[in-house]
Parts: sequence; structure tokens; C-alpha cells
Amino acid sequence: MEKQNLRPIFWEGRILRLLDQRMIPGKKEWFLASTADDTILAIREMIVRGAPAIAITGLFGVVLELKKFDTKPSYETLEIILSRILESRPTAVNLRTALDEFRKLLPKEKFESLNFGEIQNIAEKFAISVYEDDIRNNIALSNNGLALFPNKSEKIKILTHCNTGALATAGHGTALGVIRSLHEGGYDLTVYADETRPYLQGARLTAWELLEEGIDSYLITDSMAGWLMATQKINAVIVGVDRVAANGDSANKIGTYPLAIVAKAHGVPFYIAATEKSFDFRIASGKDIPIEMRNPEEVTRLNFLKKEDGSPILGEGIIAPKAVKALNPSFDVTPAEFITAFITERGIIKPSEIQKVFG
Amino acid sequence: MEKQNLRPIFWEGRILRLLDQRMIPGKKEWFLASTADDTILAIREMIVRGAPAIAITGLFGVVLELKKFDTKPSYETLEIILSRILESRPTAVNLRTALDEFRKLLPKEKFESLNFGEIQNIAEKFAISVYEDDIRNNIALSNNGLALFPNKSEKIKILTHCNTGALATAGHGTALGVIRSLHEGGYDLTVYADETRPYLQGARLTAWELLEEGIDSYLITDSMAGWLMATQKINAVIVGVDRVAANGDSANKIGTYPLAIVAKAHGVPFYIAATEKSFDFRIASGKDIPIEMRNPEEVTRLNFLKKEDGSPILGEGIIAPKAVKALNPSFDVTPAEFITAFITERGIIKPSEIQKVFG
Repeated sequence: MEKQNLRPIFWEGRILRLLDQRMIPGKKEWFLASTADDTILAIREMIVRGAPAIAITGLFGVVLELKKFDTKPSYETLEIILSRILESRPTAVNLRTALDEFRKLLPKEKFESLNFGEIQNIAEKFAISVYEDDIRNNIALSNNGLALFPNKSEKIKILTHCNTGALATAGHGTALGVIRSLHEGGYDLTVYADETRPYLQGARLTAWELLEEGIDSYLITDSMAGWLMATQKINAVIVGVDRVAANGDSANKIGTYPLAIVAKAHGVPFYIAATEKSFDFRIASGKDIPIEMRNPEEVTRLNFLKKEDGSPILGEGIIAPKAVKALNPSFDVTPAEFITAFITERGIIKPSEIQKVFG
Repeated sequence: MEKQNLRPIFWEGRILRLLDQRMIPGKKEWFLASTADDTILAIREMIVRGAPAIAITGLFGVVLELKKFDTKPSYETLEIILSRILESRPTAVNLRTALDEFRKLLPKEKFESLNFGEIQNIAEKFAISVYEDDIRNNIALSNNGLALFPNKSEKIKILTHCNTGALATAGHGTALGVIRSLHEGGYDLTVYADETRPYLQGARLTAWELLEEGIDSYLITDSMAGWLMATQKINAVIVGVDRVAANGDSANKIGTYPLAIVAKAHGVPFYIAATEKSFDFRIASGKDIPIEMRNPEEVTRLNFLKKEDGSPILGEGIIAPKAVKALNPSFDVTPAEFITAFITERGIIKPSEIQKVFG
């Protein structure tokens, strides 16, 4: 199991305690969410991030909302809060799936027949079970990933992108979970972490997690992957995923697709670590996955940048002329042909086999 | 001709006036070099950058040094200053070539037979001729580049990397020179500029030059090229180069090589704009080109970041944990097979033909 201090989410009965990831690596500060609105704010403002962690935060938002009332609210009130939570990050498939499952668990008739205490219990138990499942599945997929490296005496060099660690999930992580399990398994491991512009999740979060775990690692810019694969023997690229379409095309953090092309050009295996919740067979192929265009200021200004003491540098951090236009697609789509395999809690699965296993 | 205000270097007889590129886009500030040491500092501290601009600055450093003395110094004194200037950026082929040419122009016997005024004159005339040749050759190669876009009514979308504009040269630029000439020629043009981490020459300098010229442009992170080529019809990638080996392998700013791989995967032509001075046939292939590893703090801290008023944010700009290790290769090598052609002052030349033309 991962260290307790690498959990970003703690449920404390009436409070959801969230590690404020905007402050990492400056300082460890906790954000206390006591209402559904607090959880929506936490998702919108990137206090919590990573598709699995967002889904769990949203579910506890529902629990917090239900605990707010002295007597049972109307079913319509519940519906409104579910919609508002979904809108906090409309493209995150995990959040949508989790809220859909919650709706199935508590359809209108059942909601109206149960007493309020029973309803609160069902919601809380469901959120806790999704939280615990996430950690369990991450550990399972990570252990499955070890099979890709049968020679334990070999030096292993892995390149990863964005943050897919304990911080992006309930704990342990997906791509970074595999790396964590390799480290715990005693492999001779070196990790190269892409900084992941524009939001720098790799530099700020992945580099921090790797240091906390004592895993040998180097931070590189996203532009260095070509040099790295040409000059170092890289064993694998392992990344996470936001959403996998029925044909295996995978949307993930911007910069994933060029990494997959460069890996293929160098004969380096390209793996995606993901739990079942990331597979979305309602979507036929990558071209149907909507790409969120975020604020161009994330590209032109580093407003989230921190001073030595962890406090934000506001209105500063100019890296481009004020008048410049910028584009900020948050994701790109890697076609299935560039993906060697998916590392999942159900085993190592080729893109052509995902429907058979998860369909 | 390009606008006068987009020249980074002015020779004023006893002063070399350099646009301080560390301050762009915050403000336009001039650095006045009156000694060879000033020019060495300007190269080391990135006040001036870009291989052609560095070579010209180094040559005027020699002129300034010679003007310092009242009577002719020894030839050994001249040799020492030439070596010290070369050391300011040992990997820049243009600087080495320029200093070698200067040595041939003023061998020891000639240096000793001429009077001091004649020597000063030869040095100054040579520096000025290299400066003027650079602008003339940049304009010539840029005009040659127009032939790649025969359909003037077509919408043209070009992706470029780093800064290869007026700021990197004596004026007009190489890759950005082609873009400038397309704009001046009335083409319907949109330019996508990679920000070019870690030093952000694209965000700080290229975006600024494009705005100053009124060229329609978007800034993107280096990680967005895959998304861009998959979703937009990109007509060409055009970049500059630091050094071309005899077989056509080309060393350029880190991030160029993955861009070339992604371009090839999408069938987008990949062009390198360069003058003859960038071709170094003493080097057989890319694997013999030394790659400068710069300070890792350029990756982990944005110390060159500016406030609104253009003043530097010192000791701040943390984007990674303090203890993190980072790698900072400044260049990567693009093998000749990924290069569609070189755009030069002698025409459009395939990698297989460079020795015939320039050898």
C-alpha cells in the first residue's frame, strides 16, 4: 500500500479533506469541503484534479449536500445538485459514470420510499465504495503491469506524462501506480517525467510524488522526448487516460499523442494504465471525443506560479506578449494503432481486445 | 526589407548596441557593449542569442578589443581574445566559422607587417561584411522559400519552433524570415509558434516578432503539435538550425526532432531554413554533433520570468520541487530522413544534395 501522506482525499464524516494541489510543491495545504458547492469549486479551480479523484470528490459532494438538510429534500432537489456537480467538469467520463451509477442506485421510487437516514447512508456507502474500489483497482492494475518487465535484474527506464499518481486518484495511481509498484517490487528503476505544459502537472505534482517515494527520477520538458529516446534506452512510455473510445482511441492530457508517435518511431512500447471506468464504449472512435479548450492564459501567463513560501504570484509570470493569441486544447487523441496495450485491473489488454474484456 | 525596429544589433563605431532579449516581451532595453568582455557577457547571459547573431556579436567583440589599445598589441594577445570569445558559446558553428575566417584574413605575418590602423580597419570591415551578408542571405533564402507555396490564393498554415527571426540574426531571420517574406508577399498566412521550453524563445520572442509584424499567429505549447496536425491542415513546418552535418543530420533547438517525427507521421513537409554558414561538413553525421547540456534550473525554475513592468522575478518562479533532478539538453538532432528540404540562399536543396551545392 502507498504511504498515507500520498492520499489527496480524506472523508471525515461531515468534511471532505482535499490536498490543495495548486499549492504543490510549494506547501501542503488542505482544503476543507463541507458543502456540494465547495466540491464544485475544488474541481473547477483544480484544487483536486485527475479523472478518478474528480469523480470521488463529486460523489462526496452529493453526500455533503444530503447531510445539509434536516429532513428529506425533494427528488428534484437531488437531481439539480447532480446536474450542477456534473457541470463542474463536463468532459470527465469518470464523473459522469459515477453520477449515473448513483442515479441507478437511487431511482425516484426508491428515493421516495426510503427514509432520509437510509438515503444518506446509501449515498455515503456508495461514495466510500467508489473511493475504496479506486485504490484497490489501481493496486491491481499496477501489479499487473509488473508482468511487462519480467527481467527483474534489468535496469528499467520509463517515461511518463502528466500526473497519474496518488494525487490524481483516491490513492496509488494508474501510470504512476505501475511505477510505484515497480519501485516497491525492488526493480532498478529510473523515471523521466514530462513537465506537462501548460499546467505543469508533471513538474509540480509527478516530480513531487516521485521524490516523496524516493524513486530515482528526472524532470524533462515535453520537447525532450525525442532526444531522450534517441540517446537513452527507454523501456516503455506509460501514461494514464481520460477516456478510451470503443475502437481503442484514447484521449489524454495534451502532449500524449506526439509522445506515442515518437515512441513508435523508436520502437518503444507505449502503454496506457487505466481502470474499467475510463472505457467509454458509447463513443465509437477518437474523433467523437470532445476536446476541452481551456483558458489561453494558462499558456501565456503562469498565474498559478508560486513564490518560495508557496504563495501565488498574481498578475505576474509573463511569458508572452499581452496581445498574443494562444490555443489551449487540454487533451489530444492517440489513435489505437499507437497503443501497445492497456494496463488494467483485468490484465494487459490489446486495443483490439478491450470490447471483449470490458464490453 | 524588414522594419528597422526589428534589428537586434547596431554597430555604432565604438559601441555595439544589443537589444537585451532577456527583457522581451516586457520592455525594449538596449545593452551597450564597449569591450570584448561585454560581448562575451552578452552571449553567455543570452542578452543576444541565435547562432548568426552570436557570430556577429563575437566579431564586433574582436573589433572593440582592437580599438581598446593605443598601439598595436602582440599577435598572442589577439589569439587570446579570439579564444575567449569562442569559449562564450563553444557549440555555435557560426561563431567558430566566423573567427576562423577572421584568422585567415589576418594571419600572423600579415598582422605583424601592417600598421595598427590598417588592422583595425580590416577587422571592422570584416565584421560589418558578415553582418550585411547575413541580412542579404536571409532575405535571399526567404525569397527562395516562396517557391514552396506556388498557390498564392491558398490559405497557408505554418508551424515553427524557437526563434529564428530578426532577433536571432542580423535581421530578417531564417525560418521566420521565410514567414516574414510570405507575409510581405501578401499570402493569406497563419503561423503557429511553439513556445519552446525551457527558455521560451517562441513565447517571448517569436510571438513578439509576429505581433510586431502584424502576422496572424497563435502561440501553442511544444506538446500541442500532434493535436495541431491532426485537427488543422498544416502546410509546412519551418524551423532554423544550429548545425548541419555532411549527411544532412541537423542539430537544432530541443524539440525540433519530435516535431519532425510528428510532421512525417502526418505527411506535413518539414523544412529547415539556413544559410551556408550552418553547414559544417567537417562533421560526418548527427551522432558526432556535441549536445550542450545547460543548467537544469532553466527547467525547474523560471528565474528569467518577468513582472508586468519587465523587471525580473528573482528567486521565485518555482515550478518543481527544489530537490528534483532535471535534464536540460539544449539541442536535439533531426536525422536527414525527416527533412524534406533545406531552404537556403542558394535555393531549395534536398539533404542528399547539400554537399554538391555547399561542399
